[in-house]
Amino acid sequence: MLREIHEQPEVLGRVIEEGWGAVHAAARALRTRGFRSVMIAARGTSDNAALYAKYLFEVNLGTPTALASPSAFTIYESEMNLGGVLAVGISQSGESRDVLETVRRAGDLGAATLSLTNDEGSALAQAAEFHLPLRAGKEESVAATKTYTAELLTLYLFVEALNGRATPGGAVRELPEQVRAGLKRGWEGTARYRYADYLVVTSRGYNLATAQEAALKLMETSYVVAQAFSAADLRHGPIAMIGRDFPVIAIIPPGRTRPGMVSLVRSLRQRGADVAVVCDEEGPVREAPCGFLLPGPCPEELSPVLYAVPLQVLAHDLARLKRLDPDAPRGLSKVTETW
Amino acid sequence: MLREIHEQPEVLGRVIEEGWGAVHAAARALRTRGFRSVMIAARGTSDNAALYAKYLFEVNLGTPTALASPSAFTIYESEMNLGGVLAVGISQSGESRDVLETVRRAGDLGAATLSLTNDEGSALAQAAEFHLPLRAGKEESVAATKTYTAELLTLYLFVEALNGRATPGGAVRELPEQVRAGLKRGWEGTARYRYADYLVVTSRGYNLATAQEAALKLMETSYVVAQAFSAADLRHGPIAMIGRDFPVIAIIPPGRTRPGMVSLVRSLRQRGADVAVVCDEEGPVREAPCGFLLPGPCPEELSPVLYAVPLQVLAHDLARLKRLDPDAPRGLSKVTETW
Repeated sequence: MLREIHEQPEVLGRVIEEGWGAVHAAARALRTRGFRSVMIAARGTSDNAALYAKYLFEVNLGTPTALASPSAFTIYESEMNLGGVLAVGISQSGESRDVLETVRRAGDLGAATLSLTNDEGSALAQAAEFHLPLRAGKEESVAATKTYTAELLTLYLFVEALNGRATPGGAVRELPEQVRAGLKRGWEGTARYRYADYLVVTSRGYNLATAQEAALKLMETSYVVAQAFSAADLRHGPIAMIGRDFPVIAIIPPGRTRPGMVSLVRSLRQRGADVAVVCDEEGPVREAPCGFLLPGPCPEELSPVLYAVPLQVLAHDLARLKRLDPDAPRGLSKVTETW
Repeated sequence: MLREIHEQPEVLGRVIEEGWGAVHAAARALRTRGFRSVMIAARGTSDNAALYAKYLFEVNLGTPTALASPSAFTIYESEMNLGGVLAVGISQSGESRDVLETVRRAGDLGAATLSLTNDEGSALAQAAEFHLPLRAGKEESVAATKTYTAELLTLYLFVEALNGRATPGGAVRELPEQVRAGLKRGWEGTARYRYADYLVVTSRGYNLATAQEAALKLMETSYVVAQAFSAADLRHGPIAMIGRDFPVIAIIPPGRTRPGMVSLVRSLRQRGADVAVVCDEEGPVREAPCGFLLPGPCPEELSPVLYAVPLQVLAHDLARLKRLDPDAPRGLSKVTETW
């Protein structure tokens, strides 16, 4: 897992340099064909990439986007009318049975279909009309890391291409080096989580995906009961459970969500919570008892790629601290069979 | 909260008898107008009703449905093209600012708009073109119960009416009495959760909403770190954290998801988990160390109304056992202001 975390600058560079051609070609074909809405099917880590993509499609492209409930297709055999829909399947292995079935059925029901996988020979890559390879190299660890950020960046580039961009923009090109710089930094004070049975991770907007992926990694590798909430959803009920010493990790991204996140951190501290901070600004990190200072500047819409990294490192470090094997969580395998 | 839980048979009867007219009229008008997809905006408990509605719209009506990210409208000011979309806002108070803004903006962007609220004079009721009143009577407890099941049933009736039904069906008419019969039964063995700091609630399909609402109620009233997963999502990572004595509540609904849920319960027990069961069949309940036997039969698509009730009772009972006030969770108010 640690090796694959550190491969990310190289993988991201490859996605930009080698991936753009396929991304641009698929985007051109799909723009010509036209679609009015998007439906994305994925599970686990890839489902968190799908959540990021929902914001990209809705905010950056102006196209309403749904996260698919695979059971609507697999268990309930829905005969939805999917004319004018672009169905996207995301799976690093390309062998998730329910994601595959969702994309296949969506195609039968009238949708254009696109897949993102790390294996061009996989069933999902073959089943969709268009395929974007992740170019992450084989991922050995059960806990996905480099395929996650490769998915995020590929989705970002795809939406850029749909918006008519001819080449990847400048901010994207700086990303691999920013991730490399981030990886040279470390966490201060994460030993505090050695005996934490549970914790909450929170962020907002594009980076809600970062919070969800952080929670998933912590559950998978360190067996912490980690729950992710958007800053807004947290205030609609769950905040009641947060009292003295409750561990919270607040991901404070750059851009429009920052003021709301800073205000949430204040509310949580007033309740006595122990709030760690991931941010690219010194102030919020210095005020926190535990934190990670990321390099900047990075545009908010691209920041989930960069902000994912310290949370991967935390999940790895905490597993090691607990003498667990982050590469082989109990009872999990690399390809999960669900229907 | 307990009083309002027990008002539900009466409220559900009222939704059927008095609510059908408005539901039928709105459905007729919206069928004439036509819509290709649905987008639902809600927060907290109402967002769990929205998740149920996603299955109703997709499976029963064949219309793809997205759960809105309100921040796409409020924070990012997305200019989505919402022609051909039905935007639905759900809020018991009708005063959630971000839900209101989402519905307003959706209307500006071309969507037909519908709201469900428990207050016909509320801002949301006024802002949408069509309004379905919940008829639940004033809800005093901060933890919503009767407005939740009223939302579920109203959404069910709305989709029935969209499908051309002229009057509510027979199974619906039996529901108030089934809920009443369920309320006469009680939990066996819930004292076991007195010192549980965390737990997982799991179900599938239509009843994923039931699991999410159960987790929310437990967080709000009993300050338990309660997390909900679909049976499929649980297997994609989080199951790694479930080991010996981990408390899990499995909601095993009637219908197509039952075999998968029974198989999941077996896997969880093999890992040593302490799995409570909510079911309308004696076998799975008797095998569990703690359980709730519901009356039946109830069609799967309608069962979330019935299955919500024992989980509300559990949240209430556990709060009392902990000497907490379930009507007034710390730091929450009845109308939550988020943007």
